[in-house]
Amino acid sequence: MCGIAGTSDTILAAPVLYHLLHALQHRGQESAGIFVWDGTSVQKQKGYGLVSEVFSDADLKRFTGTVGIGHVRYPTTGGSKPENIQPFHFLFRGHSLSVVHNGNLVNTEALRDEYAGHGVTFSSTSDTEVIGTVLAGELVKGKSLEDAVLFALQKLSGSYSVICMLDGQLFGFRDPLGIKPFCMGKTKTGGYILASESAALDAVGAELLRDVRPGEFVLVGTDGIVSSQLVKAESPAHCIFEYIYFARPDSILDGVPVYDVRRKTGEILARESFADAEMVSPVPDSGTASAVGFAKQSGIPFREALIKNRYTGRTFILPSQEKRELGVRMKLNPIRSHVRNRSVILVDDSIVRGTTAKRILSLVRDFGAEEIHLRIASPPVIAPCYLGTDFPTREELISSAKTVDEVRDTIGASTLAHVSLSGLVEASGLPKEYLCLGCLTGVYPLEIAGEICEKKKMCVYRR
Amino acid sequence: MCGIAGTSDTILAAPVLYHLLHALQHRGQESAGIFVWDGTSVQKQKGYGLVSEVFSDADLKRFTGTVGIGHVRYPTTGGSKPENIQPFHFLFRGHSLSVVHNGNLVNTEALRDEYAGHGVTFSSTSDTEVIGTVLAGELVKGKSLEDAVLFALQKLSGSYSVICMLDGQLFGFRDPLGIKPFCMGKTKTGGYILASESAALDAVGAELLRDVRPGEFVLVGTDGIVSSQLVKAESPAHCIFEYIYFARPDSILDGVPVYDVRRKTGEILARESFADAEMVSPVPDSGTASAVGFAKQSGIPFREALIKNRYTGRTFILPSQEKRELGVRMKLNPIRSHVRNRSVILVDDSIVRGTTAKRILSLVRDFGAEEIHLRIASPPVIAPCYLGTDFPTREELISSAKTVDEVRDTIGASTLAHVSLSGLVEASGLPKEYLCLGCLTGVYPLEIAGEICEKKKMCVYRR
Amino acid sequence: MCGIAGTSDTILAAPVLYHLLHALQHRGQESAGIFVWDGTSVQKQKGYGLVSEVFSDADLKRFTGTVGIGHVRYPTTGGSKPENIQPFHFLFRGHSLSVVHNGNLVNTEALRDEYAGHGVTFSSTSDTEVIGTVLAGELVKGKSLEDAVLFALQKLSGSYSVICMLDGQLFGFRDPLGIKPFCMGKTKTGGYILASESAALDAVGAELLRDVRPGEFVLVGTDGIVSSQLVKAESPAHCIFEYIYFARPDSILDGVPVYDVRRKTGEILARESFADAEMVSPVPDSGTASAVGFAKQSGIPFREALIKNRYTGRTFILPSQEKRELGVRMKLNPIRSHVRNRSVILVDDSIVRGTTAKRILSLVRDFGAEEIHLRIASPPVIAPCYLGTDFPTREELISSAKTVDEVRDTIGASTLAHVSLSGLVEASGLPKEYLCLGCLTGVYPLEIAGEICEKKKMCVYRR
Amino acid sequence: MCGIAGTSDTILAAPVLYHLLHALQHRGQESAGIFVWDGTSVQKQKGYGLVSEVFSDADLKRFTGTVGIGHVRYPTTGGSKPENIQPFHFLFRGHSLSVVHNGNLVNTEALRDEYAGHGVTFSSTSDTEVIGTVLAGELVKGKSLEDAVLFALQKLSGSYSVICMLDGQLFGFRDPLGIKPFCMGKTKTGGYILASESAALDAVGAELLRDVRPGEFVLVGTDGIVSSQLVKAESPAHCIFEYIYFARPDSILDGVPVYDVRRKTGEILARESFADAEMVSPVPDSGTASAVGFAKQSGIPFREALIKNRYTGRTFILPSQEKRELGVRMKLNPIRSHVRNRSVILVDDSIVRGTTAKRILSLVRDFGAEEIHLRIASPPVIAPCYLGTDFPTREELISSAKTVDEVRDTIGASTLAHVSLSGLVEASGLPKEYLCLGCLTGVYPLEIAGEICEKKKMCVYRR
Repeated sequence: MCGIAGTSDTILAAPVLYHLLHALQHRGQESAGIFVWDGTSVQKQKGYGLVSEVFSDADLKRFTGTVGIGHVRYPTTGGSKPENIQPFHFLFRGHSLSVVHNGNLVNTEALRDEYAGHGVTFSSTSDTEVIGTVLAGELVKGKSLEDAVLFALQKLSGSYSVICMLDGQLFGFRDPLGIKPFCMGKTKTGGYILASESAALDAVGAELLRDVRPGEFVLVGTDGIVSSQLVKAESPAHCIFEYIYFARPDSILDGVPVYDVRRKTGEILARESFADAEMVSPVPDSGTASAVGFAKQSGIPFREALIKNRYTGRTFILPSQEKRELGVRMKLNPIRSHVRNRSVILVDDSIVRGTTAKRILSLVRDFGAEEIHLRIASPPVIAPCYLGTDFPTREELISSAKTVDEVRDTIGASTLAHVSLSGLVEASGLPKEYLCLGCLTGVYPLEIAGEICEKKKMCVYRR
Repeated sequence: MCGIAGTSDTILAAPVLYHLLHALQHRGQESAGIFVWDGTSVQKQKGYGLVSEVFSDADLKRFTGTVGIGHVRYPTTGGSKPENIQPFHFLFRGHSLSVVHNGNLVNTEALRDEYAGHGVTFSSTSDTEVIGTVLAGELVKGKSLEDAVLFALQKLSGSYSVICMLDGQLFGFRDPLGIKPFCMGKTKTGGYILASESAALDAVGAELLRDVRPGEFVLVGTDGIVSSQLVKAESPAHCIFEYIYFARPDSILDGVPVYDVRRKTGEILARESFADAEMVSPVPDSGTASAVGFAKQSGIPFREALIKNRYTGRTFILPSQEKRELGVRMKLNPIRSHVRNRSVILVDDSIVRGTTAKRILSLVRDFGAEEIHLRIASPPVIAPCYLGTDFPTREELISSAKTVDEVRDTIGASTLAHVSLSGLVEASGLPKEYLCLGCLTGVYPLEIAGEICEKKKMCVYRR
Repeated sequence: MCGIAGTSDTILAAPVLYHLLHALQHRGQESAGIFVWDGTSVQKQKGYGLVSEVFSDADLKRFTGTVGIGHVRYPTTGGSKPENIQPFHFLFRGHSLSVVHNGNLVNTEALRDEYAGHGVTFSSTSDTEVIGTVLAGELVKGKSLEDAVLFALQKLSGSYSVICMLDGQLFGFRDPLGIKPFCMGKTKTGGYILASESAALDAVGAELLRDVRPGEFVLVGTDGIVSSQLVKAESPAHCIFEYIYFARPDSILDGVPVYDVRRKTGEILARESFADAEMVSPVPDSGTASAVGFAKQSGIPFREALIKNRYTGRTFILPSQEKRELGVRMKLNPIRSHVRNRSVILVDDSIVRGTTAKRILSLVRDFGAEEIHLRIASPPVIAPCYLGTDFPTREELISSAKTVDEVRDTIGASTLAHVSLSGLVEASGLPKEYLCLGCLTGVYPLEIAGEICEKKKMCVYRR
Repeated sequence: MCGIAGTSDTILAAPVLYHLLHALQHRGQESAGIFVWDGTSVQKQKGYGLVSEVFSDADLKRFTGTVGIGHVRYPTTGGSKPENIQPFHFLFRGHSLSVVHNGNLVNTEALRDEYAGHGVTFSSTSDTEVIGTVLAGELVKGKSLEDAVLFALQKLSGSYSVICMLDGQLFGFRDPLGIKPFCMGKTKTGGYILASESAALDAVGAELLRDVRPGEFVLVGTDGIVSSQLVKAESPAHCIFEYIYFARPDSILDGVPVYDVRRKTGEILARESFADAEMVSPVPDSGTASAVGFAKQSGIPFREALIKNRYTGRTFILPSQEKRELGVRMKLNPIRSHVRNRSVILVDDSIVRGTTAKRILSLVRDFGAEEIHLRIASPPVIAPCYLGTDFPTREELISSAKTVDEVRDTIGASTLAHVSLSGLVEASGLPKEYLCLGCLTGVYPLEIAGEICEKKKMCVYRR
């Protein structure tokens, strides 16, 4: 999970990128970076922390150009090291290529090895550096930009929404299956924006044009966006977890409003697994939209049972049992008058390890709840993700080894029910074959060593 | 608005205070401070910023004692100056008095002048320094602690919930009208806590014992809390705005659960001022509880229209119109599919200047809403507060000069309605004469130069 | 040891104070503060660290006034606590008094107790707060400024060079014995400066007018400096250690150039305690001037044996013997070709605990020196200082218990000699009775409980 | 100018590197970095600032290995950009190569272009990245380490003292002419150190073994240092400016003690260009050793005329002439009693632009000096340096266009004299052909486009 953004406009790029990245902050809080083309070279700023911490007003004022790219990072592949903070930068024969990327390659090691044979070394463990090396390696040999991107699309296996800046020119491309989200918009000042989610466009008052298509290469020129459909797969494989959890509820991904998917999932869940209770409450904030849907469909009143402290803060660690209880209450606190002696339906988006659910249920029970019916707006997560989601190993996924009833007993719910896979797909409004459901089914849309792959989607490359 | 906390326990004080203050962070984000008694002297840490910024783990580990007090500050009287950050500290004849305070005195100037006559000077513009000077001035003459507090209760006019640490002894007192909230709790480790709100007790797993009573002096000793009812007023005057907006929804203030007040206000508002619409939406987060009540009572589905970005971040300022639009969207973004061509009831807690309401309505309208019915869960704010709320001058209060219809037109709502005063009082469950309604009525519970005071509440002092 | 500065000029005060304090940085590196009068109130900045760390350019640009005071602190009395950082500030009846101070009171406890009787408390353990409280306590009663200062001069016992700002008016006063240095100068822009040392005046291109006299009150007005000789002692008692070590060699204190005193001391030392050696080397930087004098008088060539690393840096601590050796070499490194098989005269300013001397001698010996003749440009330090120097207790002063020969053996010198007291006094060019020689003789110029006082110097007060 | 260090020992590397770099701080203050091999990967810390600022104790405690390298940077080639901070890191086929470098390549552009042909790109403008790319490019193809270094020595033209860490193995090599200094030492704990200067070895109590020879490859193994003389030039070309100014006076470079060179230069200068004056004074600290020599030879007493403020601090900038005067006095202040009405010989190491000399002379004259005889311990600098010294362009070198008499008049000296080239060479004790005198003669020891090269030194490579 990461967030990417790029702009090419008539106004200064840095404030636009700052607001785009702030709107994408939920996609990565470890580090952030902005690169802007000043006409002759690249101005850079990157570092650990939130967007508001990495970029001071003084930093932003340093940037003088109107074209730039930016990134917020959630550390998955490569680990949390300073050299993995994006954007990456490549210099060759007087040219400058900057790259940001959201997604995860599955053939990085093979590529690193292949390029080592040409005497190429790497300075980081990031797969973004591999993407840039593949691209730059073609450009430095004199290939056209389009041919270099086509080469990259053929070479790179995995999920990748990529934005680049070659000297002062902005372009982007998306993997043939369109696994991770990627959209483009038009600003009121005549410029163009590429970004992970449409909510980022809203943040700067830009209009959503459409999503970047799987396998598409888009080049932002002075006359607008030039598109080349370089690859065409049989069907896309959009990540279902973006709809379940990752994306902002106010975003529209690949034509589908996220809040609607979640709300409808809640409605279907209410139909599939009704429970007789006095109130429907979300686990804030991830369960809210589904709880709203559940309440509407079931007719049971929506009422908050848990209040989230909006101020982030680490728990101060003491070597005692006491500590762990303090831990949870830093973030969530039940409303005693709502749960005491009540029967409550709690709605959350998913269960991964089960530890958080267990702590929340124990907390609500401590405040006197009589019955807690947990309803989950996704099917059980049973398999790892190799394509950009930071799930734990299969062993740590509670639903991988345990039945729903066993999970219910482990976490301490009165009843537990997940929405069905078909219910979730129905809520998405997309054909099942347009979705990557790997984590829910264990069947992946592309070849991953040691895993089952659905019938490989044929890709047709332009040349 | 500020938050105060104190602990006297068998375990280290600093982690407890850290979590108490974090739970009270909504009451003040400008600065924070913790003082702990180490057995012979006071260990201190204070500074600008959020609790998580002011206190690093290394800072907290420095503190070695089991008794301490803390404060989070919202700058009202005295301005945002480093010397006004609490706690305050007073040294005299080998004794050490530390003081934190929530509230606002109305006779500070007279007191400063009186003490100047004794050769006493001040080092800050904070009225907390005045409280400490009055207390310490009696203690230094050899008075007993109880007599010194009685003297202070007679001398100080205004709102004040105060926690002190005299050498290693924790005590607190509350103004005779109990204007600002103040409660006490018992920990699992045999200690006691004093704090602004009960949600802070929840954060450290402590049990709410009861509220500190108006005019009460509580001394935390080894055998528990010793109480002295030093002053008794005819009736209290609890701040209504704590229930409307300030307090956390999961707190219980003076026996009344805050979320219930807000939810019931929403229900009454729905009865008083129904509107025919497709959905009820809160202005997050302050309008959520009332919107839940409104939806339930009206039968109109609850559905979010606005998503709040949980990451705080300043707007980067550019010299253009563009900027201001960017400004609002940093925080709130409409869900297009919910508001486009729809008729929406928006519920918020209050209108002060009207500028925020205007911007939000304009934003929702830009996303295509057909009708926006604004419902406010408080009567119009027509008068300033002198007792701890940072309202602007009477001139800047939009409802002071304008009728509800004029306000509706100014901010651009289709319809606008406030809950009635009697409705709000009914929702609070308290007798009207137990509340300070100054900002809603212009009539104050104690003498304020140039303002109307309700029949002065008689106070009977113990001696 | 601290440094103080004040300015009242036609140009902005902050840059002037910054450069004054930077030139006085050797007098205190723990913390620094600047207060400037902006016409209606005091602008403040203080904190831990060097002048260059405490004040950023942005900080300095905030200051808008032309009158201000500043301080650099070396923590002696009161300990290193944030509340002890100077300047101190006192508010009373619409007036504002800011105070900085160099020196040490010997009757602080009695004064704190006396003022407690009036209900006055303190917020720090600094004796500067006592000075300000005494002054402000008179001013608040309506006394004239001159009468208030006279009262302070009668009340305060010890060493004190004080600069104050009352609203926008700059003034200063010096204790009746003139123990700590204090001078005044005139700028090219028509303003006046008060400062600890004349080298600070040089730093801002100002002309040294003269020293502030012992017992003098100077008020900087629009027409220049108005002087009142409020107290007259039989004779002054200037601190001898300022000439030996504290002051900058380029300063002139009470009419005497510091470098000349040190150089002449070296010459006298060469006459008194010649040693036959190949070179004369200073312990840098404190022994340089005396080594130059010793070399000239003895005819033995001056040549550096030790090079000082100009970059300050803490030693990184490892739990081993190894560490301590690393420690010394962080700062000083011998030049092997100069000391190997050579006979060297090493000149230093003083010996306090003896630990530094021991380590330096061991280091030089490790590099192969055959003979090391240590020559000290001060008599043995045998008694504590109560008047502003941070010496250790009598027990820790190596020369308090040990003879010169015993010290020589302890620290490992081939020979060791100190300049005689009469030699040092001769080098100073001042009459012996004009100097405070407490640390060298154990006899102090004013009453200190438990110590011998020379015949008390009579003070005549103006009124 | 930069400083490099490496250690392979039985004790933790980080504290050793910290102290080595601190001792080399004079070679670069812009940024610093330390890399340590933890057994399986490289631990890193780098950033802008002094060694004491970049590495906190907590940072140093993170490092767990016993082998590591470090760097302090003075920005010459490549500009002051974060990506140019050393060490550099290269990953290939499971191996990790870290590189630090002091010096400057003259064929960087050609190399970058050549490697671009293989599809290799760069991430910085540093020539250190080029060195690492050349080395790693051979290693990745399977060459032995020795063959890879031999290849690099053939490929790289310019000055380069290089330390590398290949996985956990430390090695170094020096350009065939040995332009920049490089030495090795043995620690008391059985380890080995590579460093720019011998004074760094002193700082950690290590013994200087010898200098790394020009063209030598040294590999630090468990049994000690294995040396391979891979290249042999006709003669070395040690940088003369290291002896004149760069190196610490307590270092021994290529067998020659630096302080001795400077002192002897002062003696020769006194013989060549005596002046009749009352005192000889250095411009501190760079002129001190030469002034000591001048004083001894001339019989004129050594006495300081200028005192340097040891606390670094930027000048606070005001828009006025006043400012520039303040500027100089931040650092240097004359001793009035020494220069007033006196005739002074001032000794400095060199004149580059002439601006500093001009300001110092004007300052000394302002304090009343009658005659100022400036003596410079180097011949005029008339040509740029391409091999590691950050001189300005030829146009900005005052001695490039002006005669000595013209320079004297421009800077305002009574008389001005430089030591002769033969005098300086004599002082160095090295044959003239063993030195790089490019900046003093305009003739360089290797081919530089557009400049005169002395008869190219033949290099014989081992294979």
